[in-house]
Amino acid sequence: MSHLNAVLAKLDQNREAAITRLFDFLKIQSISTDPAYAGECRKAAEWVKAELVSIGIEAEVKPTGGHPAVTARVEGTAKRHALFYGHYDVQPVDPLNLWDTPPFEPVIATLPDGRKVIRARGSADDKGQIMTFIEACRAYKEVVGTLPIGVTFLIEGEEEDGSRHLPAFVEAEKDALKADVALVCDTSMWDRNTPQITTGLRGMVYEELTIKAADRDLHSGLFGGGAQNPIRVLAKIIADLHDADGRVTLPGFYDGVPETPSQVLEQWKSLGLTSEEFLGGVGLSEPAGEKGRLLIEMIQSRPTCDVNGIIGGYTGIGAKTVIAAEASAKISFRLVGDQNPAQVREAFYAHVRARLPKDCDVAFISHKGSPALTLPFDMPELVSAQAALQDEWGVAPVTLGSGGSIPIVGDFKRILGLDTLLVGFGLDDDRIHSPNEKYDLKSFEKGARSWARILDALAQ
Amino acid sequence: MSHLNAVLAKLDQNREAAITRLFDFLKIQSISTDPAYAGECRKAAEWVKAELVSIGIEAEVKPTGGHPAVTARVEGTAKRHALFYGHYDVQPVDPLNLWDTPPFEPVIATLPDGRKVIRARGSADDKGQIMTFIEACRAYKEVVGTLPIGVTFLIEGEEEDGSRHLPAFVEAEKDALKADVALVCDTSMWDRNTPQITTGLRGMVYEELTIKAADRDLHSGLFGGGAQNPIRVLAKIIADLHDADGRVTLPGFYDGVPETPSQVLEQWKSLGLTSEEFLGGVGLSEPAGEKGRLLIEMIQSRPTCDVNGIIGGYTGIGAKTVIAAEASAKISFRLVGDQNPAQVREAFYAHVRARLPKDCDVAFISHKGSPALTLPFDMPELVSAQAALQDEWGVAPVTLGSGGSIPIVGDFKRILGLDTLLVGFGLDDDRIHSPNEKYDLKSFEKGARSWARILDALAQ
Repeated sequence: MSHLNAVLAKLDQNREAAITRLFDFLKIQSISTDPAYAGECRKAAEWVKAELVSIGIEAEVKPTGGHPAVTARVEGTAKRHALFYGHYDVQPVDPLNLWDTPPFEPVIATLPDGRKVIRARGSADDKGQIMTFIEACRAYKEVVGTLPIGVTFLIEGEEEDGSRHLPAFVEAEKDALKADVALVCDTSMWDRNTPQITTGLRGMVYEELTIKAADRDLHSGLFGGGAQNPIRVLAKIIADLHDADGRVTLPGFYDGVPETPSQVLEQWKSLGLTSEEFLGGVGLSEPAGEKGRLLIEMIQSRPTCDVNGIIGGYTGIGAKTVIAAEASAKISFRLVGDQNPAQVREAFYAHVRARLPKDCDVAFISHKGSPALTLPFDMPELVSAQAALQDEWGVAPVTLGSGGSIPIVGDFKRILGLDTLLVGFGLDDDRIHSPNEKYDLKSFEKGARSWARILDALAQ
Repeated sequence: MSHLNAVLAKLDQNREAAITRLFDFLKIQSISTDPAYAGECRKAAEWVKAELVSIGIEAEVKPTGGHPAVTARVEGTAKRHALFYGHYDVQPVDPLNLWDTPPFEPVIATLPDGRKVIRARGSADDKGQIMTFIEACRAYKEVVGTLPIGVTFLIEGEEEDGSRHLPAFVEAEKDALKADVALVCDTSMWDRNTPQITTGLRGMVYEELTIKAADRDLHSGLFGGGAQNPIRVLAKIIADLHDADGRVTLPGFYDGVPETPSQVLEQWKSLGLTSEEFLGGVGLSEPAGEKGRLLIEMIQSRPTCDVNGIIGGYTGIGAKTVIAAEASAKISFRLVGDQNPAQVREAFYAHVRARLPKDCDVAFISHKGSPALTLPFDMPELVSAQAALQDEWGVAPVTLGSGGSIPIVGDFKRILGLDTLLVGFGLDDDRIHSPNEKYDLKSFEKGARSWARILDALAQ
């Protein structure tokens, strides 16, 4: 007989205390990208360890070559074992003057629509989300004395810095991290009332290119008309990356891109995602992707190409009649299905080289190259989690690919052979990475209850 | 009977003293764009005034609303009267560490090819060039007591800052500046041995545009594929400005562009300007302009369109998966013949607006709009100056349009009704506006002799 109802009741009882605990965690300034905050990162790791120890789970703070990681392993009532991953580090807080309250002084704020939210840096990304899982574990320990399934915790401190040391750490701790499935709480809900399980992650190829022409900046009065202009060359390269229908023109780019099964497409259509809903909040109104595709396909299941940055020539105030010696752009491709990052990169290089006039050279920097990941739709843990989330929210969770990339999920697959269940309670308006980051109180409370139900379901 | 030979002999005698005088002038740090140097600008104006007074020409330092201008008027033996224009202000000197000797401590340096040059900020642009004219006047005053023709001097101090107060000053001093022709010494020779009279100046339309899409920067993982990317929109706008033959695509752009007469084209061909000569020095090899045109046409007599700067999105080190809220570019058009700046600007605006997707807005800033200017080929002063320069250099001067713009020339035409004879002794390797600016000693000495001859010729 399951202890679930008693555990859920305990979570409701613990509400106030849980917020106090989360606030303590949020006060730690664990900015991982700034070496000045290394001490704060260690403090956050120690805090997580103490938190786990306080509920009777032995934990360790382990060196990684960068900021330390917290690990813990506890067996459960059932034999199934899950690896739970999260990160205690947070984004920088600039620009500070745009925060309504100081980023590391958490408060409960009320939004204009009446929602209560926890405002602080890291509230949604990822401290609040981690704590939904740990609070669920605490309630089990307090009510039952054990967890329904075994859990290995892995809480790292460099996610916002590209998880630089994590793959090597996972490799080194391979045996200690053994599990049947990985759980990650770092994603969003479909909307405020509809949970979501992220079943796919787009891969990425991220390239930087610099077009060089003359060996110095030239005066356009003297050379204009006679000398190659690298900004014009770059503009042509970028303009030619898409055709008039919004498709990427690189030969072979769509190799390995699966067509979404018609029944899935029907499910997506029934979600009724409108442009107004998705784009209206950021001042846009019209989907900008491939013609003839649903907006939801454009942002979830179709590959994309975006220019993330461009610079060249004179960019100060006023007019300067210069022809730049060079111009640069950062260009990224989101990949799906079986698209091969190396093949996409080569096709991009060929596209650029084919458009280089005689007097121009190009230099590339490869920033990222990772394939897409897709969860098997019939995976038993996925089916269990779907039922558990439906019980908590009263509505079936959306199972959907995500537009973003979480590189660690690829590492779990590659190194540990684990599929990852991504369940999170963030919302699109959480302003992660921006001033006034927040996490809905409802996300925090029902998130903890959701994990209690998922742990129970995974034990069956 | 002309005193020319005696005057030329006097110039040769005065060589050493002339260099000493120029060095004194070059030591004054008259950087007009930096308010910290306002005192130095005044000092340079006073220096020019004193210089003119020392040769018996009454001069005044006059307020302009900005840095003062120096004016003087002296009648000559013949009735003809010329307005001589130059500027005493200089460009900033950054980056200071790239100068071989301090910018305001003039020296005679020897280049690797043996040429002797005067190295200092302002040596070529424009203090050295002004002094070629003043030294010629000094020699006349010393030998003859008067100048061959009347001369009004106008030496301003804001040319490097866009001559901001000069048009109003010229307007206010309209009567005092009356003349038959304007003389400007602020241009270059064809090459070290061939003088040049600049008979045309390209006009300019300089526009800055900012494409705006979403009301904030977006995460490409969430919005990539669904949201407009203003960098892509801008790249398309730029790429579409030229066709495959390098012609500008704006409708009506070539209205008013004259075909160069075949005999002029033949003269230009005979100059034998090679890509190697013109482009080799800056690391290029192939003319990049309109197909089927001579390089000399591309840079002198054909209109152009160049992108002078572009910026948008993330331009720091590394990778950031952002979709920018906006992207900007600075785009300029060089105009020739009767191209209408207002019409070109409107065609550009229409080109941009026709390529704006629904969710994008554009904001324009107009930096410049001036028509091209062309000297009548049969103008008597032009014919006289050609003969004088041929006498000094032993080779016929090239008469040619210039790729650059000197806005004051348009003001002289508009306000004073004057055509301007542009004769200068700069060279392409003078590094004006850059570290190690220099002026060839030969330019300085033969420049002064050239002006002596031109003044004599204009008196005939």
